[in-house]
Amino acid sequence: MQNKPNLTIIKIGGKVLNNETALNEILSDFVHIQGPKIIVHGGGSDATELAAKLGIEAKMVNGRRITDAPMLDIVLMTYAGLLNKKIVAKLSALGSPALGLTGADGNCIQSTKRIHPEIDYGFVGDVVQVNHSFINSILEQNVVPVFCAITHNNEGQLLNTNADTIASEVAIAMAKIYNVKLFYCFEKQGVLEDVDNEDTVIENINLKLYQDLKQKNAIHSGMIPKLDNCFYALQNQVSEIQIGLPKALNNPNVKRTSIRL
Amino acid sequence: MQNKPNLTIIKIGGKVLNNETALNEILSDFVHIQGPKIIVHGGGSDATELAAKLGIEAKMVNGRRITDAPMLDIVLMTYAGLLNKKIVAKLSALGSPALGLTGADGNCIQSTKRIHPEIDYGFVGDVVQVNHSFINSILEQNVVPVFCAITHNNEGQLLNTNADTIASEVAIAMAKIYNVKLFYCFEKQGVLEDVDNEDTVIENINLKLYQDLKQKNAIHSGMIPKLDNCFYALQNQVSEIQIGLPKALNNPNVKRTSIRL
Repeated sequence: MQNKPNLTIIKIGGKVLNNETALNEILSDFVHIQGPKIIVHGGGSDATELAAKLGIEAKMVNGRRITDAPMLDIVLMTYAGLLNKKIVAKLSALGSPALGLTGADGNCIQSTKRIHPEIDYGFVGDVVQVNHSFINSILEQNVVPVFCAITHNNEGQLLNTNADTIASEVAIAMAKIYNVKLFYCFEKQGVLEDVDNEDTVIENINLKLYQDLKQKNAIHSGMIPKLDNCFYALQNQVSEIQIGLPKALNNPNVKRTSIRL
Repeated sequence: MQNKPNLTIIKIGGKVLNNETALNEILSDFVHIQGPKIIVHGGGSDATELAAKLGIEAKMVNGRRITDAPMLDIVLMTYAGLLNKKIVAKLSALGSPALGLTGADGNCIQSTKRIHPEIDYGFVGDVVQVNHSFINSILEQNVVPVFCAITHNNEGQLLNTNADTIASEVAIAMAKIYNVKLFYCFEKQGVLEDVDNEDTVIENINLKLYQDLKQKNAIHSGMIPKLDNCFYALQNQVSEIQIGLPKALNNPNVKRTSIRL
């Protein structure tokens, strides 16, 4: 492990993306991270806003968004077109050339359309394979890969894919050649014991504590898939995972949650 | 010249992009072209349609579209998001991995915001520099660069840029290391003596004939910037340029216009 070079992967959450000032701050901090690095970004509210303006209804089943064909176009336009390219242009202006990617580009992330016995999620993909050698060829040119939350099935179909999952799957794939640190950056200081109280950051979580907290229902529902992703990545050779505010990226004094097995 | 490897660059016009069947056909032909290759695509009518749906008025001055901030977002969404990624996914499905690019990605194409003494074109860029070494690093991995008609000023501003110009500028830059053939593929058989009669294809145009035809007003106004681009590229080491229908790509029996100095 010690002989592998470091790689930092940052997942930027939707609520951070919606705030231009917060986005500029995180990107300014990001470019100062030493060594090769990757960004994965979520969608923000642009997709929902564009859908509303176009009179396209967001279909939800059990609290999950259904990606029908019109919604897939919206997601492509806002994630891959608007957000992704703005992040790329900003990074380049900060002196860090970047490359915007969906999983279709360079066949970086192949997925399969989700099949569920009861719910048709529509054009939603579950990751099958990450092309770590293509991604590495970009890193080796000192260019930052910037992934949006879209993959493809390599049969011509683009698929909406959870950004947290993309971050963990890319982290796992890159762990073959790098010592990977993954930082999930979102609008809270970390995993909170009391979701309404920012002073209750749990600074260290291991698998045992996580299972205890889940049993006590002490972990917020939206946090469960996020933490599941984290432990899955740690069990697959990712070295280190943290969750916290953007400002924790370059400031060791800012509290955050560190996750280990 | 003979020692350089061949590179084929295809510019796909907007009217071809609007027709799904025509697009599928051209991509199927495209993947059978031997050796490294690049696609540059225009915008099609998606941008205009989306703008209309959102109630954003297309502003024109002297027949030229003005790219204000809302229109730039539309262009980003439709060119870089929708069209570009669909082409990439289709090519990958045809066995030819591809990489969708704006000029901001990998700092591939740097431009400068157009300054005009009388007309403010808005966020429109004129190409300053093409990063041929990054583009070549993609070609060397047998991945097809797919450019949409967007560049950036490397100071954080994305800029709408004419796709014909992108094609010729990329062709000129790549001519440093390749023997470049450029094919402008659009909805007509080539340059026509009579714009309403497809049987009047001018099969060969050189600079002398072009100047004669312009003097006689025998060349359609929209064709003039296209041909100016062609001669500019030929004067800058691009080997061969053709203009014609998509089906001329892989069928030498289909008429087209060949352009030389």
